[in-house]
Amino acid sequence: MPPFLVGKGKGWMSAEYGMLPGSTNTRKARDKAGKVDGRSVEIQRLIGRSLRAIFNLDKLGERTLWIDCDVLEADGGTRTASINGAFVAVIDALHSLKDQIPPIKEIVRDSVAAISVGLLDDVELLDLEYVEDRDAEVDLNLVMTGSGQFIEVQGTGEEATFSRSQLDRLLKLGSAGIAGVTAAQKKALGPAWPLR
Amino acid sequence: MPPFLVGKGKGWMSAEYGMLPGSTNTRKARDKAGKVDGRSVEIQRLIGRSLRAIFNLDKLGERTLWIDCDVLEADGGTRTASINGAFVAVIDALHSLKDQIPPIKEIVRDSVAAISVGLLDDVELLDLEYVEDRDAEVDLNLVMTGSGQFIEVQGTGEEATFSRSQLDRLLKLGSAGIAGVTAAQKKALGPAWPLR
Amino acid sequence: MPPFLVGKGKGWMSAEYGMLPGSTNTRKARDKAGKVDGRSVEIQRLIGRSLRAIFNLDKLGERTLWIDCDVLEADGGTRTASINGAFVAVIDALHSLKDQIPPIKEIVRDSVAAISVGLLDDVELLDLEYVEDRDAEVDLNLVMTGSGQFIEVQGTGEEATFSRSQLDRLLKLGSAGIAGVTAAQKKALGPAWPLR
Amino acid sequence: MPPFLVGKGKGWMSAEYGMLPGSTNTRKARDKAGKVDGRSVEIQRLIGRSLRAIFNLDKLGERTLWIDCDVLEADGGTRTASINGAFVAVIDALHSLKDQIPPIKEIVRDSVAAISVGLLDDVELLDLEYVEDRDAEVDLNLVMTGSGQFIEVQGTGEEATFSRSQLDRLLKLGSAGIAGVTAAQKKALGPAWPLR
Amino acid sequence: MPPFLVGKGKGWMSAEYGMLPGSTNTRKARDKAGKVDGRSVEIQRLIGRSLRAIFNLDKLGERTLWIDCDVLEADGGTRTASINGAFVAVIDALHSLKDQIPPIKEIVRDSVAAISVGLLDDVELLDLEYVEDRDAEVDLNLVMTGSGQFIEVQGTGEEATFSRSQLDRLLKLGSAGIAGVTAAQKKALGPAWPLR
Amino acid sequence: MPPFLVGKGKGWMSAEYGMLPGSTNTRKARDKAGKVDGRSVEIQRLIGRSLRAIFNLDKLGERTLWIDCDVLEADGGTRTASINGAFVAVIDALHSLKDQIPPIKEIVRDSVAAISVGLLDDVELLDLEYVEDRDAEVDLNLVMTGSGQFIEVQGTGEEATFSRSQLDRLLKLGSAGIAGVTAAQKKALGPAWPLR
Repeated sequence: MPPFLVGKGKGWMSAEYGMLPGSTNTRKARDKAGKVDGRSVEIQRLIGRSLRAIFNLDKLGERTLWIDCDVLEADGGTRTASINGAFVAVIDALHSLKDQIPPIKEIVRDSVAAISVGLLDDVELLDLEYVEDRDAEVDLNLVMTGSGQFIEVQGTGEEATFSRSQLDRLLKLGSAGIAGVTAAQKKALGPAWPLR
Repeated sequence: MPPFLVGKGKGWMSAEYGMLPGSTNTRKARDKAGKVDGRSVEIQRLIGRSLRAIFNLDKLGERTLWIDCDVLEADGGTRTASINGAFVAVIDALHSLKDQIPPIKEIVRDSVAAISVGLLDDVELLDLEYVEDRDAEVDLNLVMTGSGQFIEVQGTGEEATFSRSQLDRLLKLGSAGIAGVTAAQKKALGPAWPLR
Repeated sequence: MPPFLVGKGKGWMSAEYGMLPGSTNTRKARDKAGKVDGRSVEIQRLIGRSLRAIFNLDKLGERTLWIDCDVLEADGGTRTASINGAFVAVIDALHSLKDQIPPIKEIVRDSVAAISVGLLDDVELLDLEYVEDRDAEVDLNLVMTGSGQFIEVQGTGEEATFSRSQLDRLLKLGSAGIAGVTAAQKKALGPAWPLR
Repeated sequence: MPPFLVGKGKGWMSAEYGMLPGSTNTRKARDKAGKVDGRSVEIQRLIGRSLRAIFNLDKLGERTLWIDCDVLEADGGTRTASINGAFVAVIDALHSLKDQIPPIKEIVRDSVAAISVGLLDDVELLDLEYVEDRDAEVDLNLVMTGSGQFIEVQGTGEEATFSRSQLDRLLKLGSAGIAGVTAAQKKALGPAWPLR
Repeated sequence: MPPFLVGKGKGWMSAEYGMLPGSTNTRKARDKAGKVDGRSVEIQRLIGRSLRAIFNLDKLGERTLWIDCDVLEADGGTRTASINGAFVAVIDALHSLKDQIPPIKEIVRDSVAAISVGLLDDVELLDLEYVEDRDAEVDLNLVMTGSGQFIEVQGTGEEATFSRSQLDRLLKLGSAGIAGVTAAQKKALGPAWPLR
Repeated sequence: MPPFLVGKGKGWMSAEYGMLPGSTNTRKARDKAGKVDGRSVEIQRLIGRSLRAIFNLDKLGERTLWIDCDVLEADGGTRTASINGAFVAVIDALHSLKDQIPPIKEIVRDSVAAISVGLLDDVELLDLEYVEDRDAEVDLNLVMTGSGQFIEVQGTGEEATFSRSQLDRLLKLGSAGIAGVTAAQKKALGPAWPLR
């Protein structure tokens, strides 16, 4: 438990993110003791926040769920894939805890999914591959609920800027992509899908 | 220089961010050797990206500008204040390098400013203080250019979600705030203001 | 390259070993920066030595092959499985370097395989599962070549001792096990099997 | 105490191994904070295991004996010398604890000694010096009890392999060497020798 | 609290010292995780000792006062300036704790001040600037009480030595300097000055 | 070489100081990776400075002498003993380099020795044992040359202060002690003593 929660009767979810050395085309050197990988830290904080936004942590009891997002094979979109898989994994994990917690429907308020969109030569792209991501002028990561609410909007100009109308086009495409991911999560969980 | 730039004739800008132990109400323990402060890493990456988006690094020569953002007194908005001050400081620094670089107007494409907006009880707030920031359901950091283009849009629901129309209201308020910051930067730099 | 080899025209093989947090029954905490995992260090040194014993490093050119042994699912025998898989992976890797190196048959002197044997209530066991390994009085790891030569013999009494005749029985059972692993490696590599 | 033993009424023995910078011919750089010396970790684990194999830890009470093996002058065989000296030191230490523990004869089941043997140009060597150790094709470290049981057998081909008959010759020579070391330990401890 | 004081009913004072990257003429690189800055450690130990010498820690209650000495602008004498300011800051801090501690006059036995003196071409200098400090043959830091007692005398020949009569001249000049600093502290604290 | 000396044709001397775990009455835990021992850093900087004050580093050639001060048995005064032994060791080391350096008499300007003096119940003590050092109100470490010049004067009141006349008494006793140490060094080096 994070120290500030001890004795408050509330649960917590925390993610850890890592890429195996063999997950990338050119071998990625393993983190050395003492070296800080800022990108990994950013990503695992994002995954944790995204999950905590849709769960009633008050109903989880004083436990921390650790969600390990270890990337075995990477081709762009590992942070969004981590969130998409993490939701499915947490629902799975809650099922295995069924006897110790309230009904899952009371713990889960909504589903969560993530997708990347980007602008490359002013064309919108959905779910960017590594090469597209590297070349895109604008990169927007969206985390949304299955019901269409936003949790995170992270848009970045890569040594570039973008206009309000470009942002609107990206948000529209991204919302459609989120709907697709949500459908896939529903299919993966089958009868375990916890929402009406 | 970052290793991937050596010998490419291009410059770089990198930020470091830190809070003094006495900058906060309750003393903030100093980073211990070996401990990673994920939040600081996120912020200094954001500051660096924001600056690099508006400068022609190709014209800077093979040099890295280090921008130190050390917070002496904090009350919310330290990351946006860092960006706002960093732009002024970099222009200052470029003036002191005048003899070694091309005319500054050729290096600076636009100005950059940042502001936070948030939703508290569904009311939009601009430039949140620490207490407002802590309680806000939605927190949106905007980095924009003086000419109204976006560089970064970072919206986060804090154990909450937000709708598209709430996002639009926040973007509108934020754009107005950016205009105010830009005016203040212009005043601070006076004749050193590098844009037409 | 290890510094002592630079400019000697000889290659090197080095292994890295790690267990994913989810590989074990109870989640294994990720290595923290600065913490030393003595067991991992021992294992990766063993894997490296085992491979280097059967390859003509002189014919590899001045390159280091890094062999990543990341355990996705563990149930005893991860160090021996790492060696067994590493041999197959290195042969695969050498095939992909075919144009830059001498014929593989000149680089590989023999195959290498590893197996654990143990004594539990004075009964010999081959390829111990986690529970058997934990309870065994004696634990012997063998690394041998396909032609029946020894590379490593690591026998350990776990808060126990063993006699010469017990050692002989374990060596006999282990040799038989090695033959089985070698057959499996041969099958896995098919026509890529580099030995007569 | 190792955490898994707290409250179990059992003792523990743990070794630490280090070489002074001046212990070797060419000065050995001191371990820097954060650097992991895999070899030291391997050796101190071996020393600890070797001692724990012959003591009834159940009779030691809930205490950990720390055995410091700091090498002041090195010329090969520091790991075996550490074990040989550690046994003598532990018996000494137990005598100084006499009033707090059961009779030492009930705690010590056997003595422990270690020796290295090796093959150099197919000739067996006992207790290898640094230069012999560096050049040996096969290096075998034996840890045995005074009564002739094995605790550890660590045989390694150094970029070489060895046959079963070579192993047998090495085991035979090593056993004779162990008897010699045991006699020396007996002499060193004099009347404090704890075994019949 | 330092562990050796817990439960002894005594307080403690501890200092932390740091220089901002921008405090020096040429930017001073920030401490990296894992790197030890010996000079900072020496200085913060000196500041802590100097303060603890004049306070009745027994009357402070079981609390540690942390004194942060962060240098915003440096031009020689940062360690002595830290002590001089720290005394004023601690008195300030004690006033804000007034309701929880005995009268301040009972806690403070004396004031404390520090000054550097040095010999440059055999001429005595008081309160050396950076350039003077760098070139001085002898550098003497004095920590003294307002009543003229010594707390620390740290005299160092910089690749040079000094005679007894040179030491005496430096001690005389330093004592005069301390009187000046004490007067300035008295003025800064005004009615809060705690000594008769 | 320290980076600022590379290519300047000047030598350097650097000390490392450490205490073995078994050197103290109660076992001193070994430094853990990442932990900073401020006291050791202070001491090794003192030893290095003390040596560099009396050698003509310009005549040493571009080499660094590393002086290892590893304490095997401690009972107070380890820092002064380190300096006293280091001088003898460096002269020894220079003799072994005779063929590569100018005559030693040209490199050594003076000898160096160190001693501690202290006040316990206002009585002066020379060369304090551990228990005396712990209880002394004032602790003064002197580093002086054989010819009676000062290199370091480090006087500290331990939660106490001292007067000018107390300082004078300590300096007088210390100078006498230094003369005794110098005589012992001269005897130890015999004909290798490098000074007229």
